Amino acid sequence: MRLVIVGGSDAGISAGLRARELDPAVEVMLLLADRFPNYSICGLPFYISGETADWRDLAHQKLPDLESAGLELLMEHQVTSIQPEAKLVHATGPESRPVSLHYDKLIIATGAELVRPPIPGLDLEGVHLLHTMEDSFRVQAAGAALGGGRALVIGGGYIGLEMADSLTHRGLRVTVVEQLPAVMPTVDAELGNLVAEELGRHAVTVRTGVAVERIERIERNAGRLVATGSGGFEGEFDLVLVAVGVRPSADLAVAAGIEIGTRGAIRVNRCMETTVADVYGAGDCVETWHRLLQRPLYLPLGTTAHKQGRVAGERAVGGQAEFQGSLGTQVVKVFDLAVARTGLRQDEALHEGFQPVTTETRVWDHKAYYPGAHELTIRVTGDRRSGRLLGAQMIGHPAGQVAKRIDIFATALFHAMTVDGLSDLDLSYTPPFSAPWDPVQVAAQEWAREVPRAPAG
Amino acid sequence: MRLVIVGGSDAGISAGLRARELDPAVEVMLLLADRFPNYSICGLPFYISGETADWRDLAHQKLPDLESAGLELLMEHQVTSIQPEAKLVHATGPESRPVSLHYDKLIIATGAELVRPPIPGLDLEGVHLLHTMEDSFRVQAAGAALGGGRALVIGGGYIGLEMADSLTHRGLRVTVVEQLPAVMPTVDAELGNLVAEELGRHAVTVRTGVAVERIERIERNAGRLVATGSGGFEGEFDLVLVAVGVRPSADLAVAAGIEIGTRGAIRVNRCMETTVADVYGAGDCVETWHRLLQRPLYLPLGTTAHKQGRVAGERAVGGQAEFQGSLGTQVVKVFDLAVARTGLRQDEALHEGFQPVTTETRVWDHKAYYPGAHELTIRVTGDRRSGRLLGAQMIGHPAGQVAKRIDIFATALFHAMTVDGLSDLDLSYTPPFSAPWDPVQVAAQEWAREVPRAPAG
Repeated sequence: MRLVIVGGSDAGISAGLRARELDPAVEVMLLLADRFPNYSICGLPFYISGETADWRDLAHQKLPDLESAGLELLMEHQVTSIQPEAKLVHATGPESRPVSLHYDKLIIATGAELVRPPIPGLDLEGVHLLHTMEDSFRVQAAGAALGGGRALVIGGGYIGLEMADSLTHRGLRVTVVEQLPAVMPTVDAELGNLVAEELGRHAVTVRTGVAVERIERIERNAGRLVATGSGGFEGEFDLVLVAVGVRPSADLAVAAGIEIGTRGAIRVNRCMETTVADVYGAGDCVETWHRLLQRPLYLPLGTTAHKQGRVAGERAVGGQAEFQGSLGTQVVKVFDLAVARTGLRQDEALHEGFQPVTTETRVWDHKAYYPGAHELTIRVTGDRRSGRLLGAQMIGHPAGQVAKRIDIFATALFHAMTVDGLSDLDLSYTPPFSAPWDPVQVAAQEWAREVPRAPAG
Repeated sequence: MRLVIVGGSDAGISAGLRARELDPAVEVMLLLADRFPNYSICGLPFYISGETADWRDLAHQKLPDLESAGLELLMEHQVTSIQPEAKLVHATGPESRPVSLHYDKLIIATGAELVRPPIPGLDLEGVHLLHTMEDSFRVQAAGAALGGGRALVIGGGYIGLEMADSLTHRGLRVTVVEQLPAVMPTVDAELGNLVAEELGRHAVTVRTGVAVERIERIERNAGRLVATGSGGFEGEFDLVLVAVGVRPSADLAVAAGIEIGTRGAIRVNRCMETTVADVYGAGDCVETWHRLLQRPLYLPLGTTAHKQGRVAGERAVGGQAEFQGSLGTQVVKVFDLAVARTGLRQDEALHEGFQPVTTETRVWDHKAYYPGAHELTIRVTGDRRSGRLLGAQMIGHPAGQVAKRIDIFATALFHAMTVDGLSDLDLSYTPPFSAPWDPVQVAAQEWAREVPRAPAG
């Protein structure tokens, strides 16, 4: 039995490892376009900042480990087409050598590609889109050479803000431009504004409601770029980084006659099967089943890619795993803040036909009488009709265990708990780390006070 | 309607506040023996260490807040008897003034009292049992006066170890003596030994398998005590602290004809009703419903006291809350370690008729390529037959979010998840805080590899 996997990042590697774990007899051949299997794309900002000195450390698992787990890696193999009727994958290897592989099962894990906004000047030297390892080598080199220079980050989403942090750490003076009224649009503007304040505290200039319209080279200074945009935005920069989002890399699947679902992502069911027999999909190139909404969305996240890959790998060797769905749980570090969310925000919940109510609570991460307490801001969204928890957002110092506190909400959401029910959870407490009611429960109780339910008695 | 509450600590205050929140018309009279309502007993080690400078900060809520919430507090009132037939509570107030109160509903929240081990010499000056605020004032004063002196802590449970940390912080040289083979018997000896190593790194002498048999005053040095015990243990100390556990304060209930359940605790159902009409119980004086075992245990914890108090307060005013059960979730900080557990350990699970398997996993709290990663040790206990999660223990640097990672296990246990199912949870990830599979999931996957289940396919 031969399993061929197209793509060597999170989903592909995860699939291959799971298949081999369950069935050591399966032959797993994995084709990847570059020579960097299993690299943590999420780690690039920390390599560029200098916090991670050696890019080789970014690999989740190193090549010898992958090989000893039984994965046969064909690096620098660009897959050109898939022929499902003949069960063939065609690729171009090093030195343009054509390669054709027969498969019994195929997993497509081609990931996502960066959106290139229609801004004239994106091809100029000094303008970067960050996606591959090669991109990051270029930005790292440029950043290191430009200590004290000026950088523009186009896009105030989580990657843009991680890069603002990263380039500041490198010694650059950074400006972030975001089209929407607040940065970090994955959380409510109230929290986005707290993130903007944190950026300001670290000398990052934030311009919201601004669209960059043009990037040009300055004649009198060959190394410099000028960016102009709406609202009279104009600035000179040594480096421009574009981070305005990603879209699924699905061209290969489309050409093979595989059906496409929401937002251009490959349609898959919860067994990670595409619409073509013996072909699975996983990761940033496919739709993601949303556990709360019970329908597919496009929600590319590394955690999800790992889970979907694991399911696809298990299915490919005859296992019965099912993808249990995403809640869009995510966290990002921006300077001394952790910003996290899970589930739906107020506006998303409203759009989905719920009767959402969102409350905001400020609460110490642990008993304030013990040194080092940090204030957390927690937003809880619940459904007025059913009392059900719909989502939560949290922001605060990383030492306030924001990342794993959002996971308490995420685990509660996974089990469709009511907001009120959170108070029943038996959570750990000692004064240096929490309070007898954990901040998560304090926020839930605040919501319940705001939304009194008919007394059950 | 008058609700009388006996006890002014976590359970009693929690009950009173909840009753007033749901029914602002209820009259809540709360009798407490001392003049320190709503004090965080869990905070005493940090007051004694000096980390919390002002003992007044230890109150969960301050007196004016309690009063403005509508609680009428009768301080320094020692309740002497309860007459359920007449619905009367008799107490002795300040200046030995007798007080009798009629109640419509009564909540007994008398807490626990310290176990006094049968060691001759416990009444000597310089020997302390730590339970009340007055006790802690004495220990704090003694500790502050004895900088550089030697302290003996009898009992290596979580309070004993917190006090070892606390007194070391105060400048004392501390010895901990524990009868069992390892300290921190709430977790497996493997983790208890890691705690002992941490104590050693901070110059605390740890003697396990040793029972202290006698404490005597040294004639030649009036301020010093000599403690002798099994295994040839002998040492001179300036201060001795006894922390060998607590038992329910249930005498009042017994005298009133209220039924007693497990280990001397007041018998209650999940509505927190005692066996006598209109009398509820909550906190360290009552039995606690164990969610996993589905039967009552004696499991005194501050978090549980708050929850049970809240249920009792709600029930007393006609609400329908039910206590959803404890999992024994707890965490303690010992120097630079957080030690946490939830659910059952291997031996407990075996004793309960499960077919438990426990695996131990060492895993970085976040991607090791990002600075500041700490290794966590996680023990997962699951049932071989059903695959169900039974419990988890975790130890590591507090920055590794140990306290809130145990809560992911606790929330999973609350929902009776399988160990395998943990990998389906959508948990947050960014390299500075986690990995695409959170350490909780890495440990669960390790367990699942150890305990292969019949393939579902």
